[in-house]
Amino acid sequence: MRIGIDVGATGIAGGIVGSEGSVMRELVIATRPERGYERIVMDIAYIINTLKPRLQENGVKIENVGVGIPGIADEKGDVIYCVNLGWKGMPLGRDLKKLTGLEVFIENDANAAALAEHAYGSMKGADCGVMLTLGSGVGGGIVIGGRLHRGFSGAGGEIGHMAVGENFYNCTCGRNGCLETFASARALERYFMKLVEYADEESSALQAVGEAGVVDARTIFEFAKRGDLLSLMAVSRLSRYLAKGIVNIINMLDPEVIVLGGGVSKAGDFLLDMTREQVEREVLYKGVRHAEIKLAEFGDKAGIVGASLIPTYNANPKE
Amino acid sequence: MRIGIDVGATGIAGGIVGSEGSVMRELVIATRPERGYERIVMDIAYIINTLKPRLQENGVKIENVGVGIPGIADEKGDVIYCVNLGWKGMPLGRDLKKLTGLEVFIENDANAAALAEHAYGSMKGADCGVMLTLGSGVGGGIVIGGRLHRGFSGAGGEIGHMAVGENFYNCTCGRNGCLETFASARALERYFMKLVEYADEESSALQAVGEAGVVDARTIFEFAKRGDLLSLMAVSRLSRYLAKGIVNIINMLDPEVIVLGGGVSKAGDFLLDMTREQVEREVLYKGVRHAEIKLAEFGDKAGIVGASLIPTYNANPKE
Repeated sequence: MRIGIDVGATGIAGGIVGSEGSVMRELVIATRPERGYERIVMDIAYIINTLKPRLQENGVKIENVGVGIPGIADEKGDVIYCVNLGWKGMPLGRDLKKLTGLEVFIENDANAAALAEHAYGSMKGADCGVMLTLGSGVGGGIVIGGRLHRGFSGAGGEIGHMAVGENFYNCTCGRNGCLETFASARALERYFMKLVEYADEESSALQAVGEAGVVDARTIFEFAKRGDLLSLMAVSRLSRYLAKGIVNIINMLDPEVIVLGGGVSKAGDFLLDMTREQVEREVLYKGVRHAEIKLAEFGDKAGIVGASLIPTYNANPKE
Repeated sequence: MRIGIDVGATGIAGGIVGSEGSVMRELVIATRPERGYERIVMDIAYIINTLKPRLQENGVKIENVGVGIPGIADEKGDVIYCVNLGWKGMPLGRDLKKLTGLEVFIENDANAAALAEHAYGSMKGADCGVMLTLGSGVGGGIVIGGRLHRGFSGAGGEIGHMAVGENFYNCTCGRNGCLETFASARALERYFMKLVEYADEESSALQAVGEAGVVDARTIFEFAKRGDLLSLMAVSRLSRYLAKGIVNIINMLDPEVIVLGGGVSKAGDFLLDMTREQVEREVLYKGVRHAEIKLAEFGDKAGIVGASLIPTYNANPKE
């Protein structure tokens, strides 16, 4: 049995993960990053220490404990960077060992999500698979040779920061044209509002939420499906650039499978079909079998499940 | 000892490759693609059959025979696509076995060049290294875990066809914004001529070659170094987009090293310094150690040397 913890900017969620990727005894604590590193570490440790005896009292051996963070960590478990939480150079793995008595492994959360999909979900068994997490930002995780591709500094898989075009605003990372500025929920919302501002066209999506309302990505997708023109234009642009990113991945890594997860992927087949069509048009070697593009199978639980798998993927290549 | 053959659109070059990457007994035959597949295969076989006895008469065991092609092949040695030569679905590996009696391995030429750099050159010993071949087009080769990353269909490493921006003309592959349309010799020449057309500025590069002359990439680099404004603008744009591509690779794969080869890389430190500076500005995790960007060590011989290594890299992972 394994314990997985998913640390996000809003919540710290942990649970016991069963052999087929089921999550039991889930616990959630609000993150409130402004509290600072020490308090959050204590909460993570609290979750682990609460789950631990529930396993031990049943005589179950704890195989793995992993924590996914919205940042990057080195292989010793030191956090290199974690922008959303304001962390830099924190010895998270060692601190958690002190507080729990267990070896705790740290990994990027999008990498962790890719592990969940690779172990039990949409890219099960793939030798090379890539996952894109399309949320408020865009994260990525790459599995090669059945192992997580962490990269030299643990900074690999940041596919959201692949420049794929030129955009009307810069990415938070300082570059222009990052996939994240085209294919995330925030990017969709931002482009939609730009369309509203400049277009002469009325939008029923805008009317639906009222003057003071916020048109979020879900609403835009919903109205695009109903044929609202501005919503459709915004979604179509997202899909076009998403396809650009996917074709870049295909041309570069030629993986077996590319999986779309995160909130934006909840648009489902509507987005998938549009994107697949564009990929077909753009891919370099037409007629040569390329990566299947699929929706992720894990929803919100990908973080916990994936985090619990970190040590396995780091320690044991393939066999 | 090994035999390597590099099949290009202009020449077929083959040689015996020594243990440290030296090339002996080189033979070159003009390709003339219009002659068709059969004649070219016979010439490749002729080169192998000429080199073979020179090894055997000295009692040397032939370890590997590999052929690099400007296209992609599957692991059985069938050519999937080879646009410049007009080949599709040709059983090159099997045909060469019939004609030479030897097991002959086929691989993409840019992938082969990466193997030469990985075995003996700028990315020697790297766990993950990426090579960009900046020639008339842009090719790429990726080594991961000490092995060539061929991808699911052998189509991996086509980094020249990674979209990194939006350009004023489309790529030969049909997409817009491919790295090849920004960072190849042809791209440089094309953008330079566009500048000449629209700018009010005189260019000494243009004057140097005269009215009827062609301003090639080498001339543009030469005059950029001397401070010719239009040449400098063209080189600076090439470098800016090359850096975009490199940062994409860093953010995605976080390799140990990125190597620049091909004709454009002969611009040397002038191009390298400019590009490194831009990479520093754009990379996602500032202050985190990222891939060293280096010039390739092999010149024209990378193709032959790399081709001779194909079987080793395909058959024997790391150990």
